Amino acid sequence: MRVQVIAVGRVKGPLGPAVDHYRTRAERYWKLEVREVREGRGEPSAVLRTEGERILDRTAAQGRLWALSRSGRPWSSTEWARHLERVSMDAHPTVDIVLGGAWGLDAAVLDRADRTVSLSRATLPHDLARLVLFEQLYRAGTILRGEPYHKGPGA
Amino acid sequence: MRVQVIAVGRVKGPLGPAVDHYRTRAERYWKLEVREVREGRGEPSAVLRTEGERILDRTAAQGRLWALSRSGRPWSSTEWARHLERVSMDAHPTVDIVLGGAWGLDAAVLDRADRTVSLSRATLPHDLARLVLFEQLYRAGTILRGEPYHKGPGA
Repeated sequence: MRVQVIAVGRVKGPLGPAVDHYRTRAERYWKLEVREVREGRGEPSAVLRTEGERILDRTAAQGRLWALSRSGRPWSSTEWARHLERVSMDAHPTVDIVLGGAWGLDAAVLDRADRTVSLSRATLPHDLARLVLFEQLYRAGTILRGEPYHKGPGA
Repeated sequence: MRVQVIAVGRVKGPLGPAVDHYRTRAERYWKLEVREVREGRGEPSAVLRTEGERILDRTAAQGRLWALSRSGRPWSSTEWARHLERVSMDAHPTVDIVLGGAWGLDAAVLDRADRTVSLSRATLPHDLARLVLFEQLYRAGTILRGEPYHKGPGA
């Protein structure tokens, strides 16, 4: 099953090796592609609009779209696993997962999204959000295959 | 103001540099101390009890105790800032923030905690939880000083 992560900006600096580590692990379970779009410039509203257009240009023609937003629905790791499992049973088993930039995501992206999901109520920098996402994709894979990595208590 | 992070286990591997990066940044704002306790062994209940005793041995005699738990209250970054600010006005401005191990935290720790706070509804590995915590401590510092790092939309 194809999981395409569309993210604003590049990961650089001290989080790079950690992001690569979990990305590689997640790739054991999903056909994972990462598309980075350039950050917008100027006023926040212009940044959001430009980034939103670049994101929507890269979404798959078919498949689902999940937007990550602080104010979205907080999924447990088993919810991540269950939702991914559902996509895998689609006729076009593809999901685009969208991560915004410093100002979040444009309304046009949120409107198009099938789901809006929150990794944390706290604001995370975009590279840390990407790290948490890859770790959850990896963890979801281990949950679905019944592998021993996942030890979270309860649901 | 003193912030003591009591965590089960050591950070090793690819997350090390990222954790150090945000720890150093958080230290600009808080008198930050990190105390690591050894992981317990055996059955989950024995692990929790042993780790819980080691954690409670290291808590400050005076000051507040916050436990991090997936099922706790999800704080936004501005809530992190506000709660830390309140502690700074205490007669003994100290908070212990406790991070459990693979099986979470013993009931004895949760019972002693003044607050139980969630970084994410998803299960995070302990080193990633520590990274998110340090980043929030850093972000809270910038929020309280009105510095430009924090760009999260709204509260």
